[in-house]
Amino acid sequence: MAKPVQEQLIKEAQKHLDNLTKPIGSLGLLESIALKMSAITGQVKPTLPERKRVYVFAGDHGVVAEGVSAYPAEVTAAMVANFLAGGAAVNVFARHVNAEVLVVDAGVASDLKPEPGLVILKVGKGTGNFTRGPAMTRLEAERSLAYGKKLAQQAVGDKVGLIIVGDMGIGNTTTATAVSVAFGFEVEEILDIGTGIDQEGLKKKKEAVLKAIGLNKPDPNDPIDVLAKVGSYCFGEIAGLILGAAENGIPVVLDGFPTTAAALIAWKIDPKLTDYLFAGHLSAVKGHRILLEAMELEPILNLQMRLGEGTGGVLATFIIEVAIKMACEMATFEEAGVSRGNEKDIE
Amino acid sequence: MAKPVQEQLIKEAQKHLDNLTKPIGSLGLLESIALKMSAITGQVKPTLPERKRVYVFAGDHGVVAEGVSAYPAEVTAAMVANFLAGGAAVNVFARHVNAEVLVVDAGVASDLKPEPGLVILKVGKGTGNFTRGPAMTRLEAERSLAYGKKLAQQAVGDKVGLIIVGDMGIGNTTTATAVSVAFGFEVEEILDIGTGIDQEGLKKKKEAVLKAIGLNKPDPNDPIDVLAKVGSYCFGEIAGLILGAAENGIPVVLDGFPTTAAALIAWKIDPKLTDYLFAGHLSAVKGHRILLEAMELEPILNLQMRLGEGTGGVLATFIIEVAIKMACEMATFEEAGVSRGNEKDIE
Repeated sequence: MAKPVQEQLIKEAQKHLDNLTKPIGSLGLLESIALKMSAITGQVKPTLPERKRVYVFAGDHGVVAEGVSAYPAEVTAAMVANFLAGGAAVNVFARHVNAEVLVVDAGVASDLKPEPGLVILKVGKGTGNFTRGPAMTRLEAERSLAYGKKLAQQAVGDKVGLIIVGDMGIGNTTTATAVSVAFGFEVEEILDIGTGIDQEGLKKKKEAVLKAIGLNKPDPNDPIDVLAKVGSYCFGEIAGLILGAAENGIPVVLDGFPTTAAALIAWKIDPKLTDYLFAGHLSAVKGHRILLEAMELEPILNLQMRLGEGTGGVLATFIIEVAIKMACEMATFEEAGVSRGNEKDIE
Repeated sequence: MAKPVQEQLIKEAQKHLDNLTKPIGSLGLLESIALKMSAITGQVKPTLPERKRVYVFAGDHGVVAEGVSAYPAEVTAAMVANFLAGGAAVNVFARHVNAEVLVVDAGVASDLKPEPGLVILKVGKGTGNFTRGPAMTRLEAERSLAYGKKLAQQAVGDKVGLIIVGDMGIGNTTTATAVSVAFGFEVEEILDIGTGIDQEGLKKKKEAVLKAIGLNKPDPNDPIDVLAKVGSYCFGEIAGLILGAAENGIPVVLDGFPTTAAALIAWKIDPKLTDYLFAGHLSAVKGHRILLEAMELEPILNLQMRLGEGTGGVLATFIIEVAIKMACEMATFEEAGVSRGNEKDIE
């Protein structure tokens, strides 16, 4: 279970923010972020995370055989090579914010060669096509969660203070849609083009999702059942990492729709996870906002991005850090000798 | 007039972005920003700005005598001291993005002592109360524009590649509202609480604006007349800096509602300015979005901030820089050996 956050500190932290030389509440979302970090760290002036790490979970999804994606499945492995060579968007963004990139083979269909920056945690070579049967067995679902928790333990050992979760896998928005629908969201509210399919592809995607739900009948009250039947190894490892991070008091920044659907599985296991989660951005993919609202998360950025890989989450760490710096470095009215005025708290 | 941008390069720059290892258009606003920087710099892979500088324009507004703000006018000078000591929000944010802070005395009511980081360009000690007569003479309005252009010249000499404009002045959202209404926007669409006044203050603010327009009758087709009658020295210097920057090919990042109203004056003088302007963020102040839409600018951040000082503009430079890095550092499909798939351009 998530380590309890220090909610009693929020009042004191709020008082500190209100003493800084700015109108009350005028730094909006930055103030909410700072308060959340105060509760997590137990500090009115939270310490900046020493190390930030983005985990890019790569995995293949059997459902791709149904023609739901604009890309062939081989792209997953090719993109892993691109991540390791430093040429993908997430690499560029991670360098910009000084975050480490760790690629996780969470079930790529082909065999990947071990190399620095790659962790091989394959539960299997691609999940099963969930339009024909469950994506994986319950045992495999539990193993994928355990693998994710193992990554969290390593992060603790490495003194990683902020984790970003990203994903790369052809077919992952179809899996994310299936997971959302399994938990009771309406398919029409969620379904979107992902990285870019046409109307024909969209129709296939909807049919695949509805077929998967009808055939496998995932139990919405049993998150591991949902993961096993219509999830993926990738989603299980992301969910496990989030659960493990929260157990150890490490905040996690989500990226787009797939990582948020994976987080939803973890959140159904432990709703207190919200205390540790940041929504890095609002993706242009339709279902994303609905899942974030369900977990009461407000997106930090909205740049109309729909790439994945952790790109939105990585950029958001820049905002989380400036929120912390605001709390730590701004002068108070007293220190600066500035009159407070008679403004009301208009929030 | 604004230096013409290289629009013919946009097609080539777009082709380059479409060759990078990501679905077409999937980096949303970052791609638009990169294209705009390509047109400005004349480079498919734009060079990162060597130096970034935020100009914080401080000035007093005579209309404060009408009780339109929650803060006394003395706060303007006290905040200047806070900026110079490095304790204000804009200082914290500027350090975070490695930007320089330059404070401009654009008409603070009291005499400020010269010191490093402060440029004294006082047209007068606070503008006149525009509910009783014009804010300034036409000659003063022209002088304020000239002072702003002088700052732009210095920026060129200092090799500043990206300018952020910020403002600090008790009463500045009232002035911004008056300028907007003078240009034909409806007062009800624009009026908001600024940094935080109550309903009584809001009523006074509306009355002050309508009285100023009725009394001074600014000519909407003569931007300098609008500036003189219901503007401020501060707004004139901001407008002059923007005009001068665009003449010299330097992009400018706007902050909140007041800097955007000042930019509107400049834009009425030269609508080609849009090619050089970035909307750093969408402020929580109501009128801001409407002015940005008039100039066809899309805000980069939306953090529900309403502080001013350049805080939103400064944070946005981080996104502008990552957009440039995307164009420069990402691998192409060919370089990475990744299959293109059959995705359509869905933009």
